[in-house]
Amino acid sequence: MTTMLGSGNQACSPTHAPPCNTLGFLQKNNSLGEEGRLAGSLSERQKNLFSCVNSDRDARFRRTETDFSNMFARDLLPAKNGEEATMQFLLELVDILTNYVRKTFDRSTKVLDFHHPHQLLEGMEGFNLELSDQPESLEQILVDCRDTLKYGVRTGHPRFFNQLSTGLDIIGLAGEWLTSTANTNMFTYEIAPVFVLMEQLTLKKMREIIGWPSGEGDGIFSPGGAISNMYSVMIARYKYFPEVKTKGMSAAPRLVLFTSEHFLYFPVIPQSHYSIKKAGAALGFGSENVVLLSTDERGRVIPADLEAKILDVKQKGYHPLFVNATAGSTVYGAFDPINEIADICEKYNMWLHVDGAWGGGLLMSRKHRHKFSGVERANSVTWNPHKMMGVPLQCSAILVREKGILAGCNSMCAGYLFQPDKQYDVSYDTGDKAIQCGRHVDIFKFWLMWKAKGTVGFEQHIDKCLDLSQYLYDKIRNREGYEMVFEGVPQHTNVCFWYIPPSLRGMEHNSKEYREKLHKVAPNIKAMMMESGTTMVGYQPQGQKVNFFRMVISNPAALQSDIDFLIDEIERLGRDL
Amino acid sequence: MTTMLGSGNQACSPTHAPPCNTLGFLQKNNSLGEEGRLAGSLSERQKNLFSCVNSDRDARFRRTETDFSNMFARDLLPAKNGEEATMQFLLELVDILTNYVRKTFDRSTKVLDFHHPHQLLEGMEGFNLELSDQPESLEQILVDCRDTLKYGVRTGHPRFFNQLSTGLDIIGLAGEWLTSTANTNMFTYEIAPVFVLMEQLTLKKMREIIGWPSGEGDGIFSPGGAISNMYSVMIARYKYFPEVKTKGMSAAPRLVLFTSEHFLYFPVIPQSHYSIKKAGAALGFGSENVVLLSTDERGRVIPADLEAKILDVKQKGYHPLFVNATAGSTVYGAFDPINEIADICEKYNMWLHVDGAWGGGLLMSRKHRHKFSGVERANSVTWNPHKMMGVPLQCSAILVREKGILAGCNSMCAGYLFQPDKQYDVSYDTGDKAIQCGRHVDIFKFWLMWKAKGTVGFEQHIDKCLDLSQYLYDKIRNREGYEMVFEGVPQHTNVCFWYIPPSLRGMEHNSKEYREKLHKVAPNIKAMMMESGTTMVGYQPQGQKVNFFRMVISNPAALQSDIDFLIDEIERLGRDL
Repeated sequence: MTTMLGSGNQACSPTHAPPCNTLGFLQKNNSLGEEGRLAGSLSERQKNLFSCVNSDRDARFRRTETDFSNMFARDLLPAKNGEEATMQFLLELVDILTNYVRKTFDRSTKVLDFHHPHQLLEGMEGFNLELSDQPESLEQILVDCRDTLKYGVRTGHPRFFNQLSTGLDIIGLAGEWLTSTANTNMFTYEIAPVFVLMEQLTLKKMREIIGWPSGEGDGIFSPGGAISNMYSVMIARYKYFPEVKTKGMSAAPRLVLFTSEHFLYFPVIPQSHYSIKKAGAALGFGSENVVLLSTDERGRVIPADLEAKILDVKQKGYHPLFVNATAGSTVYGAFDPINEIADICEKYNMWLHVDGAWGGGLLMSRKHRHKFSGVERANSVTWNPHKMMGVPLQCSAILVREKGILAGCNSMCAGYLFQPDKQYDVSYDTGDKAIQCGRHVDIFKFWLMWKAKGTVGFEQHIDKCLDLSQYLYDKIRNREGYEMVFEGVPQHTNVCFWYIPPSLRGMEHNSKEYREKLHKVAPNIKAMMMESGTTMVGYQPQGQKVNFFRMVISNPAALQSDIDFLIDEIERLGRDL
Repeated sequence: MTTMLGSGNQACSPTHAPPCNTLGFLQKNNSLGEEGRLAGSLSERQKNLFSCVNSDRDARFRRTETDFSNMFARDLLPAKNGEEATMQFLLELVDILTNYVRKTFDRSTKVLDFHHPHQLLEGMEGFNLELSDQPESLEQILVDCRDTLKYGVRTGHPRFFNQLSTGLDIIGLAGEWLTSTANTNMFTYEIAPVFVLMEQLTLKKMREIIGWPSGEGDGIFSPGGAISNMYSVMIARYKYFPEVKTKGMSAAPRLVLFTSEHFLYFPVIPQSHYSIKKAGAALGFGSENVVLLSTDERGRVIPADLEAKILDVKQKGYHPLFVNATAGSTVYGAFDPINEIADICEKYNMWLHVDGAWGGGLLMSRKHRHKFSGVERANSVTWNPHKMMGVPLQCSAILVREKGILAGCNSMCAGYLFQPDKQYDVSYDTGDKAIQCGRHVDIFKFWLMWKAKGTVGFEQHIDKCLDLSQYLYDKIRNREGYEMVFEGVPQHTNVCFWYIPPSLRGMEHNSKEYREKLHKVAPNIKAMMMESGTTMVGYQPQGQKVNFFRMVISNPAALQSDIDFLIDEIERLGRDL
């Protein structure tokens, strides 16, 4: 094993490889001062050998041909003399990862290499998922890494349209790599000073964009939209019935939550309705006390239905507490009319939550943010940058108009007992306002992307995706063999449609046979797509409507030609059904 | 900007830089077959130029001196011709990260470079946290990455002892880098086939280690111990009062949860007690219905007290539902007597949960797992590999003895409606049993570490940390100026002690003045530690006991010399207080 070190442009070739981890590459502003004590002392010879690395620039490791077959995890840092092995291992891994990244954007690469669970469990040539008592060599570990990627799904591929979260943002990726290298948690300023401040500034910026005066308010990043929505229900309950925190649900009347009916069966990625139901069940309301609101043909809640149902609930002696207005529904991409719902919430003194998990990104677009008209009247907003804005998973924010209410709701100790003897301003510690203890650092990748793109960069991405969705809509709405699930230009990038194979085209649409056959078309095409690995798009039924394709576009890599490809592929695979 | 490509040992130097992203580096088993369609066609000249990359080995990018000052995020992939810039940017970032990794293990590097919130908010030379509308150059982005690390805390440093989660495991880090590159979520097998299977196999292995027959049961990885504990309370409620799911808490009698009293004020990293209280409040039980159990001098729950309190609750007409036995408490590292608690739970037909968030790792050690004696009698167990086992944050499992109960508790739709028309066995889809919708991939790093170390590797790590803690205990228990907070060898790596500065040594221990002065010692020393950046260790009060140091060891990089360093440092900083 040879060592190659370079410092800036200055090459540096030691004659053999000494233990690098005792060299003490001193970083100018981050080393122990006069009081510092070196754990291991260096021989003068070692110092001279590596004098070139004492420049301001850090030493640069170059990848060499390393034999990993006799090396093990125990040979890596913090093992004595483990530095060179560690660097070579990480660089080898990075080579695997960067190749994966390149191929992800290469349209000649498959989106996935599909295998059934039993196939992967039985073991694919050299890829054995079973864990054992004895360690494997680093060579095998690198093979396992390659295989893990090989049998996975390229969610960043330009033709991957299967989820609300698609794409592989390079800056976001860099942010995640750094986050995992820093490996800390958001609990206190003490151990995450920079990340805690980034979170604070970013939440403020998001509240400004929502339109709350001076960006004042509260908020936190949580592990996904369902948990963010759960927070909103918890704080609504705390606002109106604070004693539930200590005494339980028996301290309140029967509380009722309202959300869009827009679900039946199981959407590909459930949101709002579904997560509100789950929250209702988990938090002790009971899922029966989540009332579903009727929607119009486009999937938008009908305000009159909300008011009628509130009155009905009141008449029964229950307490209407909370309305969730969905801003970008999972299947149709529908935006509920926030202003009209806000009027009703004000009239009946209810909490208004806007679930913008999927739609939130549109707030960044001057062209499309009108769909959120009235959002500044909401008491709380869920907004997942990991969906429409292309931030890597997970990145979801719950934003709240009233300052301090998160801590009030979740804190388990009086503020003055909160280690007031720390030397810094402990109001920056976020632990007690979360329902989590440790909390993953989800902010950095998002902050870094915002720095790198600017608000305008997010806006361009949003506008481009909506343009592409319009392109798809225009392409298929009058095309032979297609039927739209709802009429009119979609509000979000969701385009819902049936592909009708030639064999079904003459049939009576209301016949049982037609419906049964059509119900099977999308699943069959999807299965063939996955087998051939060419593209992926979701499908589901909705209410009385049989299975249809739900196309969504959040992938920055997608072009019009990829939309064309998808349509060609549906027709190629479906024409003989 | 120049391009340097190498394929294995074979150098390949094109005369200028063509768009690399149209080259189609075909991976043998993962490319479109005969039916594949290339999105962009290559000129023959381009193909010839790069013929060397068509070998079986992937092209290897070498880092070159690149000027990032005029490059922006929009120049990276998926931008046309963005491949070279992307590769150079990622390699530059990796250089920053690998240097950070090296220095983290270098004892001449500071643990942190402390600044107050207002200092960081005002902006440190060139490091501005504010977000703006316009994009910054990639050069600035790289500077931001360096600065983010510079002003953060090196949680992997051999002298970082501040949290239950410490250390930087290189294999775990590699796992996280890969996870973020794959950027998918655990919702369905469809989009995370390999990760879903890894989770299933790893959970089974963990259940086997707990001692449940054949490793049968249920489980899921959740975003941290608090959420895992919340799951346990939810499923206990569902088991005994399933109608609460639909009807809410009013469908059950007043339900009571029991957990250790071991908290007062705010522990540095709260667990069990604290998270059970939070769960009680969130889930609608009310925090008053979380009954705290008395502990012995070592912080272990007294079973007789549990039984007395159960009887008291029953006499009041309430329903005792759930007992949490802590296996490794946050402050003392205490293990509650599981067998005795299990006897009581059986007698009163209650759910027994074992919170092994911190202690769980000891199950991997033949020497120490006796502390978990009786754990196989638990109905559910929380076990955080991200604590004692050194897996990067976040990685927490909730394990349940009864199969299918997680889905029963959290599912919002009948099983037969769960997209039964998918072409694979949908029992592998995990989405509906979680309270989350999207779920971060927390399994891969853990699976990879297990492969790389084997069970024996985890065992060695656990045993080594406990030996080190014994070394610390032996060193200070009779040393002048030290007092132990509790007597006897710690059960976990928690060593709790007061340092008594010379000025306090002659004073009456029960005097108010002594207690007040001693209460300030640990905070003062900690503040100086952080200012000098040499080491970090936690402190807190407990019950009537004034602030003391709580030393915990989970860091694989720590040696006896680091323990010596900590003690020297406490004495250096504290001697004149």
